[in-house]
Amino acid sequence: MNETLKIIAERFSCRAFDDRLPEMEKLEKIALAAVQSPSALNRQPWRIKVIIDKEFIGEMDIEGMHVLSEAGDKSVYERFMDRGGRLFYNAPCMFLILQQSGAEIDTGIVSENISIAAASLGLGSVICGMARIPFESKNGDTFKQRAGFEIGFEFGVSVLVGYAKKFGVPHEPDSSKISFIENYSKLS
Amino acid sequence: MNETLKIIAERFSCRAFDDRLPEMEKLEKIALAAVQSPSALNRQPWRIKVIIDKEFIGEMDIEGMHVLSEAGDKSVYERFMDRGGRLFYNAPCMFLILQQSGAEIDTGIVSENISIAAASLGLGSVICGMARIPFESKNGDTFKQRAGFEIGFEFGVSVLVGYAKKFGVPHEPDSSKISFIENYSKLS
Repeated sequence: MNETLKIIAERFSCRAFDDRLPEMEKLEKIALAAVQSPSALNRQPWRIKVIIDKEFIGEMDIEGMHVLSEAGDKSVYERFMDRGGRLFYNAPCMFLILQQSGAEIDTGIVSENISIAAASLGLGSVICGMARIPFESKNGDTFKQRAGFEIGFEFGVSVLVGYAKKFGVPHEPDSSKISFIENYSKLS
Repeated sequence: MNETLKIIAERFSCRAFDDRLPEMEKLEKIALAAVQSPSALNRQPWRIKVIIDKEFIGEMDIEGMHVLSEAGDKSVYERFMDRGGRLFYNAPCMFLILQQSGAEIDTGIVSENISIAAASLGLGSVICGMARIPFESKNGDTFKQRAGFEIGFEFGVSVLVGYAKKFGVPHEPDSSKISFIENYSKLS
């Protein structure tokens, strides 16, 4: 297994970060990997906002947990309470991917580049759709302004990045989801 | 720059493949990287069909080009004719990602894992949404059956994989798409 395959195999979704902000040099390398992503027709229909403002992330976390606490179905709120009560797991950095409408596949590609680049630099990460919640809350416009949302761009997904507090184990890959479709005539 | 960041930086969208089918061992490693992808709530809402039947890929190619040739807007058809007249660039292998409805971000993540894994193994690849066309054509049901579409799954995206015929250059990364959002008080 080469180094890259090893990084892919060992990447795990980190749900406990320590307080240290990763070195700016590492964050810059990850951001570069993000904009090196392929996109449909090379349209690059995204913007990368690297939020390293802990206060801001903390305010969005509180807002998001508040929204979840008021939801009819409390199961998501309880899941996060069980995990420590933090929507963003104390992450010191959020890579926020903004996208043009309909660009979800392109956004997914970028998020995985960020995640793999982070892993290669010894950082934990987790792709986090929950960051959508504060931006769609009643204070959403304030959060959007602060995060630098631009006209024509919407929330895509976020990737939380930082040093992992706990070592995590990747999910067991499920090979039953793979099929090889070979040549009929060759097989018969 | 570590090995993984180098692979990410040098990956390019390959649009000319030679005839050789990559070694099965490599294809299996790529497929494993695909199912090692993170997904929302670890739902893994995808299936990976590794199509190594050149005849089948060829028939889908012909069907796709036929559909494009009959479109009102001929610009896409002409673009592919200029590039050699093949929708799938003579690729000997198509990683077809099937997804559950709405799982585009998860699909994007898988496609990038495939693409990076392929690059790490010395293979070219291109993420190809055009593979949707034959599956939605008048012969779509036959193609779907042959490709092993399952109930509850739809076309997500495909990744064409093979040995590159021509060396390709990655697109120039656009750093203007990156902004760092720092702490206000720290800055003032």
